[in-house]
Order: sequence, then structure tokens, then C-alpha cells
Amino acid sequence: MRGRAATAAAIVALGTAALAAAVPAPAAAAVREYWVAAVPVTWNIVPNQRDAIAGTTYAPALTVIPTVVYRRYTRGWRRPLPNAPRGSSNQNLIPGPLLRARVGDRILVHFKNRDFAFRRPHSMHFHGVRYRPSSDGAYLPGFSGRGADVRPGQTFTYRLDAVSDSAGVWPYHDHSPSMDESIAGGMWGFLSILRRHQRAPDREFEVVLAPMGQFQTIDGRAFVGNTPVFTSHVGQTVQWDVMAMGSEHHTFHVHGHRWVAADGTDHDTQTVGPAESFAIGWREQDPGTWLYHCHVEAHMMAGMIGIYRVRPRPR
Amino acid sequence: MRGRAATAAAIVALGTAALAAAVPAPAAAAVREYWVAAVPVTWNIVPNQRDAIAGTTYAPALTVIPTVVYRRYTRGWRRPLPNAPRGSSNQNLIPGPLLRARVGDRILVHFKNRDFAFRRPHSMHFHGVRYRPSSDGAYLPGFSGRGADVRPGQTFTYRLDAVSDSAGVWPYHDHSPSMDESIAGGMWGFLSILRRHQRAPDREFEVVLAPMGQFQTIDGRAFVGNTPVFTSHVGQTVQWDVMAMGSEHHTFHVHGHRWVAADGTDHDTQTVGPAESFAIGWREQDPGTWLYHCHVEAHMMAGMIGIYRVRPRPR
Amino acid sequence: MRGRAATAAAIVALGTAALAAAVPAPAAAAVREYWVAAVPVTWNIVPNQRDAIAGTTYAPALTVIPTVVYRRYTRGWRRPLPNAPRGSSNQNLIPGPLLRARVGDRILVHFKNRDFAFRRPHSMHFHGVRYRPSSDGAYLPGFSGRGADVRPGQTFTYRLDAVSDSAGVWPYHDHSPSMDESIAGGMWGFLSILRRHQRAPDREFEVVLAPMGQFQTIDGRAFVGNTPVFTSHVGQTVQWDVMAMGSEHHTFHVHGHRWVAADGTDHDTQTVGPAESFAIGWREQDPGTWLYHCHVEAHMMAGMIGIYRVRPRPR
Repeated sequence: MRGRAATAAAIVALGTAALAAAVPAPAAAAVREYWVAAVPVTWNIVPNQRDAIAGTTYAPALTVIPTVVYRRYTRGWRRPLPNAPRGSSNQNLIPGPLLRARVGDRILVHFKNRDFAFRRPHSMHFHGVRYRPSSDGAYLPGFSGRGADVRPGQTFTYRLDAVSDSAGVWPYHDHSPSMDESIAGGMWGFLSILRRHQRAPDREFEVVLAPMGQFQTIDGRAFVGNTPVFTSHVGQTVQWDVMAMGSEHHTFHVHGHRWVAADGTDHDTQTVGPAESFAIGWREQDPGTWLYHCHVEAHMMAGMIGIYRVRPRPR
Repeated sequence: MRGRAATAAAIVALGTAALAAAVPAPAAAAVREYWVAAVPVTWNIVPNQRDAIAGTTYAPALTVIPTVVYRRYTRGWRRPLPNAPRGSSNQNLIPGPLLRARVGDRILVHFKNRDFAFRRPHSMHFHGVRYRPSSDGAYLPGFSGRGADVRPGQTFTYRLDAVSDSAGVWPYHDHSPSMDESIAGGMWGFLSILRRHQRAPDREFEVVLAPMGQFQTIDGRAFVGNTPVFTSHVGQTVQWDVMAMGSEHHTFHVHGHRWVAADGTDHDTQTVGPAESFAIGWREQDPGTWLYHCHVEAHMMAGMIGIYRVRPRPR
Repeated sequence: MRGRAATAAAIVALGTAALAAAVPAPAAAAVREYWVAAVPVTWNIVPNQRDAIAGTTYAPALTVIPTVVYRRYTRGWRRPLPNAPRGSSNQNLIPGPLLRARVGDRILVHFKNRDFAFRRPHSMHFHGVRYRPSSDGAYLPGFSGRGADVRPGQTFTYRLDAVSDSAGVWPYHDHSPSMDESIAGGMWGFLSILRRHQRAPDREFEVVLAPMGQFQTIDGRAFVGNTPVFTSHVGQTVQWDVMAMGSEHHTFHVHGHRWVAADGTDHDTQTVGPAESFAIGWREQDPGTWLYHCHVEAHMMAGMIGIYRVRPRPR
């Protein structure tokens, strides 16, 4: 319909980035180690150069930017790993590695600054977990240590504890002297921490609402056809990890679904401000192709909208 | 006082728009049918052309706009009905018909696009209720159907279910290809859904916080004397249905009253972002003339403020 | 480090403004009387003229403003009192007197307008408490009385009741015809109301997030080294009273700590919009020098950040 219909297949083909949920074994308290690096990338916010709903196009000069992101590696930073290890996507979007843990775990994050493009200092600052000031990762002249100001080529290990009030999803992000540019450029990701005996969801979707350049993005991408296409099937439990970074408040909305918010009431639209985060979810029962988006009208029009596909229950 | 005092009577006379609450019989699950049309109107955001608190005036050229709104009709769109059927007001403000239902109900909304002024496509997208993708009403090239793109002269019936997690108040709004202009122009309204055995409040007030033109409006009107004057008396239960549309967050405040928010704590000011909604209320015990307003200072100064009058208990 | 390190001692020396918590005796319901005046002051938003984290400086022409604030007095306005009576600070920041009460109390606030600088009318409007319209303090032509429009040299007594749903922390602020300028200039403060048998925290910190001039301030100060340095020691109960004034939403964040929000979930970042307020707290167990700040990036960069110092448990 409308001459724009031909883009439908392309919309889904390009944006397929559903992140399958792992089900970590409910093991005894453990030490979880992650190797992460800050790496320069050239990023296209609108790879198909189109806003399919408005029927407009954008030149690559507006959509392609050089930036720095967090990437996951094998032990000792030998070999890159996908940030989202299992699932239907073989691409990495902007969010850094999904750092999974369980209450009671010690988490060691080994960080290496490989930003030899901008040659800026970087760091990692973690929300939700307990740590000593030396692992805070936030730059404060005269007080903060090495971990808040990791120079290109240097490394630092953050020592974190997932304590009883750490269950849930939380942001991490750069808090070094280059924080202002780094957050605008995408240096952020999620911690996802289960309670001691909590069953992991069948599907876990990462949604970071953040401006990039002149666009409003989800995981660093703008407009349907570019933003992640999350997928599930009827009968699965799905969890949406939602946070915002930057300077604006958003309202996260999923079409055709409702969830129980933390206050016990039912919502289908929920405010999230910078560095706030929440996990919402349900057992899927509504097959179809749905929209999810920020309901701030100006943000939706600037790209903060994507597709959620629910297949019928498999036989 | 201040030479502005003479406007006091006029303030209340003009803005009297209290919406009386109906008490739907707690009947068995039913099919509720509504006939709604998109109709062009010429709207005056500031009919008295005055900001009585600041003592300033506005020329009609700034306050009168042509726009399109939802209006309620009798079966078959034969005859217009007031959007707010019972109560002290004989005028329709901007919000579309208050669509009332009870958990368990099937709701059929018959929609007709009578926008022969701008000749834009329109639709209705409903929050809070369950429906199939064909009743979603949101335009997505290649996926959405007729109900997302209803052309002038055409009709469409949306089939909705008020399910167990649908209780509460929810927005509906245009989500067609003309959504951007339609939401700026006032194509929105409330669903108000009671639990199975919930008693309806004595008074139900609709508060939509949205920008229109250069003003910040409540139900499409700016400044005391133009915004609705809600009324009750001591002993009545009152419910305020609050939502925001557009691109900004607001903080809704009522003077001299407090309410229990969903999280169980007491508030007299509460954030609401675009397409969020909540119902708050109390049993009235404080007679007087009170203000209600958005507490975002710039919004209040741009018109987002009104009057709530509580009479003593009748004898 | 970085040549900026020399400022570390100065940061703490200048900004030390921890507000010690009083422990009001859990007495029977009482009448609490406060004498408050609106007084002109010359205020420096950035007394050390530096953003120590960014390493930039600001000329006094940008940071010093004439304004009007609330100040506490002895009975009959005879002698000024510090707004924050006990604790390590001998300076008054912008927030007006911390008005403490307990559920069941009658509160009398005797207000005097001493604004002989701008010669504007002023008032006090209180959130959270119960009162008659005559004590509302909000200007509405034709309805409001003397208490909403107190002229220079005049006085007015507001009569307030701390009722069962008044427990918590609440804003008060000017709501007179000069409200727009007064709120931009700092005419605001906290009510802090305990439940009938609630134990007061060991430490109570006041955090008002508000723009002043071109800066984003905490209690009227911008950048570490100027904003209040809150202090506690391990084992103490601490309470943060947080509110926003102005036209923007914020996200309040404390490093290295989490709290249970009203909805029962754990947070370390929480949205607060204009005139919203909340009290959060914990029993301290994490010694160190921590940051607290608004996590809206643009606000943090414009000064909305400070230091929280936790000493080890004293022996």
C-alpha cells in the first residue's frame, strides 16, 4: 500500500536483532568474569537510509558517525565475541555486552581502553551493584583512582558484588573525563541480575533509548527497518530491559500488550529518564506484528520506533 | 482586587465544564458499541482571550485554529451526541468521547473519517485493551490494514476486549499516517474501564495535558476562565482521569488535596509523560475554590491551569 | 592528578554543608510555630568560580545574582536563625527553613515580606498538608485572599495541619503574582513530616534540583566544590529529601548506594519532576567519597553534581 509497501520485507530482513535469552544455570554463588574493551567503530544509525513510515530518506552523511563502543572479548581480550551471544542476530548493535549475573555473585569486569582513534580516557561505571570507591569508575579530581581515567592501551579490573538489592536490570556507562562525548556516542550497556532462584525469561530484549546525532535511537538505530526486530512465540516468557541515556525522558510503549509495573498496576506505557532502568515482561499470547516505540511524539518521529514479531505457538 | 477581580465571575461562567460521572449498572459482561467520527472544527484555545492571573490578553489570531477532533454520534452516525453526556456543561471540549466499559466487556468502536477539511487519513489506536493486530489502528507500511489508514468518507470498526488487566483509564488517539498533525491538533480521548464489581465514582473529571499552538492546554483550553471548571460537593467520591499527549512530561497538582498513588504513598503532584495515564481520587471533604495545574512552571505560565470548586455538603 | 588535583581539598572545604538531622522528641500532637521572612540576598551560584571536573572557570558576572529567599527568624522576626539549625555547616544555602513536624501537629507559619529590593508581592504555598483556602497562598484574581499576595512590609500567618496522609517530605514555594520570578530565584524549601511514632533519621540531607541563571543547581549551587558536601558515618541512618523546582524533570542518582523506592523495588536513580518530592534512605555501610548528581547529562554538566562523604564507624 501507498508505494511504500515494498519496503516491508526489507524492514524485517535488515533489522532482525532479537536477542535470545540465555538461561544461566541456577548455580551456587560464583565469580563471573567479563572481558570488555572500548573500541572505535564507524556506525550507521540508519543503514537503509529510510524512514519507512514517513516515506523520507536520509543521506549517509547524516547517518554515519565515527564513535567508540564497548565490545565483549574472550579471556585476555584475545578474540572478539558478540555482545549478544545467542539469538537470531549476527550483528552487534550499540549496547555493550549484556553482563549477566545472579544475586550472590562476584563480578569481575576486565576493561581495556582500545580507543586509539580519539585517544580519549574511558571507564566503566556500574549501577545497581555494590563496590568499593576504587571500582566506582567516576572521575573526580583528587579523589578518583585509575579506574576512572583509563588511558588508551591501559587496563583496569572492576570488582563488583551482586547483593540482595541488586536484582533487576541496570545501566553501566563511561564516567571518565570524556563521559560527555562517550555517552552521546554510545558507551553504555546493561547489567541483568537474577534473584537467587529466579528463572530466566525465554527471551530477553535490550532497549536503550538514547539520542545519537540528530536522531532518537533504540540501541543506536533509528526508524523501523533499522531498529532491532524483537521476536518471540506464543507461550514464551519475554522480558524487556529498558533504560535511557542522555538528557531526555521517554515513555516506552508496546502495542497490544500490558505489563504489571513495580507498583502493582497495569501499564502499557512507562516513563524512563536518563540512567533509570526497568525490566518488564509477560507470557506471550498475542501473535502478530506489533510496534514498540517511545511515545514522546518528537522522539518517535525522529526514529525511536521498532517492530516486535510474535509467532503462533509452534506445534 | 488588582483591577483583575472583575473577571472572577466570568472565569467560572465560561469555563464551567465539570463532567458528571455516570454510574453504569454493574451488569453482566456486555457488548458496548460507540459511534465516533473525526470531524473538522474551528477551535478557540483561549475563548475569553485572557490570561487572568498574569493580566495579559491574546488576539484571536493566536488562539483560534482549524483542527480535527473525535466526536460521538448516535448509532449509524445519524446525530451528534455530547462527548461528555451528563453534567453541568453543554459544551464539548477537545477530548473525544469518554469510552466507558467494565472488565469482561467487548467494545466495538465504529469509526468514520469525516475530515473533508484537510482530507487526511485518520485512525483510532487504543491503549489498555486487548485486540488483534487488525484493530491496532497504527500505520506500518506493508503490515497494517485498513483500520490504520481510514480515508475521508470511509469507516472502520475496531474490536476491543476489556480484559482483567484493562481496568483503569487509558488514552486513545490517531496513529494513522497523519498522526503527527492529528495529535498536535487534538485527536485523543480516554477509555475508562471499571473492574468487574467496582463502584463508579460520583464525579469523573477528564484532564488531558497537551500543547496546542503556542499554548499548554488542559482539554484544549488555556488559562483559568477557559480551562474546565470541575465541581463536586463534600461527601462525593471524585476521580481525576489524567493523561498527557505530545512530547513533554508534566506534573499534575491539585491544591489542598492529596491522593494515594499506585505505589501506596501519598502524593499531591505526580509526573505523567506522553500517553501515560492514571486515575486518582478521594472522598471530598475540603470545600472551597482550588487550583489544579501542571507544576512545570513554563507550562503553568503558558495556560495549563484551572479551577476546582467544592461546595459544602448539601442538606 | 591532571593538574586539577590541587582543588580536592578546596572542594570539600568550601562545600561542606551537611545538614545534621534533629531527632524531635516523639511528643504528643503540638502546635509548631515558625517565623519566616522573604529577604533579598546577593547570591553566588559558583563561589569558587570553577567547574573542577571539566577544568573550566566562570567569571563572577555570570555566577552572582541578586535574588530573594526564605529565611528563618526567632519569634516576632527579631533575629535571623540558620535555616539548617544543627550540623557541620555555618552557611545558609538557598532552600528556605526546613519546616519539621509530626502527623497530628498544627503548624503555624508566620510570614513577613521583607523584599524591599524588588518590592514584589510574595507568599508561601505548602504541599502535603491540609488547610483552608485562606491559607493556600496561591494567587487567583477574585478568589484568593491576603495570604496569596503579601506586599512588602506586610505579614500573614498560614495555618496548616499535618494529617495522616501528610507524612513525608513536601515542597513549599512562592505562589503569589511574582511566582514566576520567585521560583527562578530560589523561593522554595521543604516540609519534613514524620509519622506519629516514626524515628527521625540520624542525618537528613536537603536536595533541591533547580535551574538558576544558566546553571543547574543543587540548593542554589553548581559544580563540586560549591554544591553541598553531605556527610555521615557507617552505622548511621541517612535520609535524602529530594525535590525539583522549575520546568524540567531530573533523575537523582547516588553512587555506590541503592534504596527501596515507594513501589518496593530497588533503585539508585529516580525521576523527580517540578514540585514532586520524595524521601529515600538507608543505614550507611559503605565508607568513601561518593558522587551524587542528576543523571540528565546536560544538567550534570551544567553543575548539578556534588559530593557525599561517608566516614568509617567511629570507635
